[in-house]
Amino acid sequence: MTDQERPDDPSVVDPSVFDPIPQPDREARRAAWQRQASLTKPTGSLGRLEELSTWIAACQGHCPPVPFARPRIVIFAGDHGIARHGVSAYPPEVTVQMVRNFLDGGAAINCLAENAGATVRVVDISVDGDTPASVSAHKVRRSSGRIDTEDAMSHDEAVAAVAAGRAIADEEIDAGADLLIAGDMGIGNTTPATVLVATLTRTEPIAAVGRGTGIDDNAWMLKTAAVRDAMRRGKIVARDPVRLLATSAGADIAAMAGFLAQASLRRTPVILDGVVVSSAALVAEDLAAGAREWWLAGHRSTEPAHSIALRRLQLEPIVDLGMRLGEGSGAAVALPILAAAVATLARMATFEEAGVSDR
Amino acid sequence: MTDQERPDDPSVVDPSVFDPIPQPDREARRAAWQRQASLTKPTGSLGRLEELSTWIAACQGHCPPVPFARPRIVIFAGDHGIARHGVSAYPPEVTVQMVRNFLDGGAAINCLAENAGATVRVVDISVDGDTPASVSAHKVRRSSGRIDTEDAMSHDEAVAAVAAGRAIADEEIDAGADLLIAGDMGIGNTTPATVLVATLTRTEPIAAVGRGTGIDDNAWMLKTAAVRDAMRRGKIVARDPVRLLATSAGADIAAMAGFLAQASLRRTPVILDGVVVSSAALVAEDLAAGAREWWLAGHRSTEPAHSIALRRLQLEPIVDLGMRLGEGSGAAVALPILAAAVATLARMATFEEAGVSDR
Repeated sequence: MTDQERPDDPSVVDPSVFDPIPQPDREARRAAWQRQASLTKPTGSLGRLEELSTWIAACQGHCPPVPFARPRIVIFAGDHGIARHGVSAYPPEVTVQMVRNFLDGGAAINCLAENAGATVRVVDISVDGDTPASVSAHKVRRSSGRIDTEDAMSHDEAVAAVAAGRAIADEEIDAGADLLIAGDMGIGNTTPATVLVATLTRTEPIAAVGRGTGIDDNAWMLKTAAVRDAMRRGKIVARDPVRLLATSAGADIAAMAGFLAQASLRRTPVILDGVVVSSAALVAEDLAAGAREWWLAGHRSTEPAHSIALRRLQLEPIVDLGMRLGEGSGAAVALPILAAAVATLARMATFEEAGVSDR
Repeated sequence: MTDQERPDDPSVVDPSVFDPIPQPDREARRAAWQRQASLTKPTGSLGRLEELSTWIAACQGHCPPVPFARPRIVIFAGDHGIARHGVSAYPPEVTVQMVRNFLDGGAAINCLAENAGATVRVVDISVDGDTPASVSAHKVRRSSGRIDTEDAMSHDEAVAAVAAGRAIADEEIDAGADLLIAGDMGIGNTTPATVLVATLTRTEPIAAVGRGTGIDDNAWMLKTAAVRDAMRRGKIVARDPVRLLATSAGADIAAMAGFLAQASLRRTPVILDGVVVSSAALVAEDLAAGAREWWLAGHRSTEPAHSIALRRLQLEPIVDLGMRLGEGSGAAVALPILAAAVATLARMATFEEAGVSDR
């Protein structure tokens, strides 16, 4: 055992903090399926809504489930060194500009959250610029190293980022959040996300690299080369989740991984968004086995690595609308469908109550 | 020209009332696409939401579009003679029982409507029983003939049913409805719906007949035989929409066809639901060419004839959740996604407004 691996060393993530991840309640799930069969509709006629509603009942530990009182979207903002090397259609300055846009309510996720009855919080984990104190309390560092030639951050920073994500989940759950969505903002962030997914699923770069914000063929080739080079560095440490985060991710993605694992530890359901969040989810499942039982795939994005990650997580998305924005937008679009599922199980009349003949 | 075809004969639907169906506004659509490109997100990154939002702008005739103030779901209830011949898993009495359930707020559609910010109205067009005066004002008749051996109703009744549907659309639009959803309730109604779809698309019965409320193999064979026999009667009159409705549909479906065509005439967007509403939509498009430009497919149900109808209408559903309930439920689940699309186009900040770099 080296110094760095001592459990009392604060620079090490002790895996036992997540061990064991609780599982959603089986009795509540069973009761929910029974109640589904008693409601005034042909059995199974609500399709996927029935499955979603019973999952929420299991997460909440009681049936009927309670409609969400405080669904909360947390956007993890961070910059990436690789963004200065031709992998994105936008300049890195956009990250800090978009943080301001989130705070002003002008971004897509603000509109989608309001439409879904959710609220938005943005946290600066690793933005390469100054942001208001209200969003930078958990800031770990500025930007991250270019992962094709250097580590994204130090091991200590990765540990701090995971801890920051866990603390943010705790803050939200302690404040009453009963459903969490993680969103991402960071020019260039689909590059580390693709590296994580391709490394952990042993996928060839060309099968995993997508168009991100909408890059042309030339940028796609640069991005694919960067992913290939970063994977060479990442695969050496792929079995150690925190080392992989330090080598190939970025503090924002590391924080998302901590956030997702902590949500599961705290028995709080999560709707996953696109490729960036799902790459963090793959790492979080490695950090905290069984965490994925608390997650739902909101949508399928156009990024190839997103579908690869969802397949590995064995999660089937609710909607497939050709979205590729990030920010938690795909999850926010799926939220009203999950709420619809809960509403039917919670409030529909039974055959007996309504005096309707059940065959 | 026979007596029945004289335009001044009230028992004839004069096709010229729908001629020409207006088209959604091209200028507003163009302005909406331009605005989409100026909003703080990569162009195209909201996927299908962008297309939906521009369609609503075109329907409303201005950009940005206005969030829906009064989305309205109208459930057309009616019984079907064929239901007494083994084609459904439920007894016909359930239709009138479910009308009561809708009024009491205990049905799936009540929960889904509330979740989506919509309200529900149920109309008894041809229920085989007594319903409150509040829902029976447009009642055309009780039940319908068994369509495998006799006409569903008389030609005059079909004309009256189409007129009832048109009047209901007018009532709703005059009361401020800015988005309409038609729903269905009627034990056995997927049998006439399948007959209409298979007849109008020249599909073999076995490729079109589904499990409806969840019938077993034996009932499926009975249903398929009924559809086959009904198609023999229906195909003779397939070129005349009103005669086809009288021969093979039912007053509830005929009223839905009038409702859908009238919504288009009144420039009001509609989200289509499952196979029953979509079968009415096929007939409505024959009654009022171009009406489908005002319709959106909310979901893809598990009924084979639904997908066949949507393909003919060239409509791509928003969600695919394995639903097969009717009542407008699939459309109600899709409504928040349409509202999300409108919210982004209506309220997002532009690159200029937010001070975000546009490449």
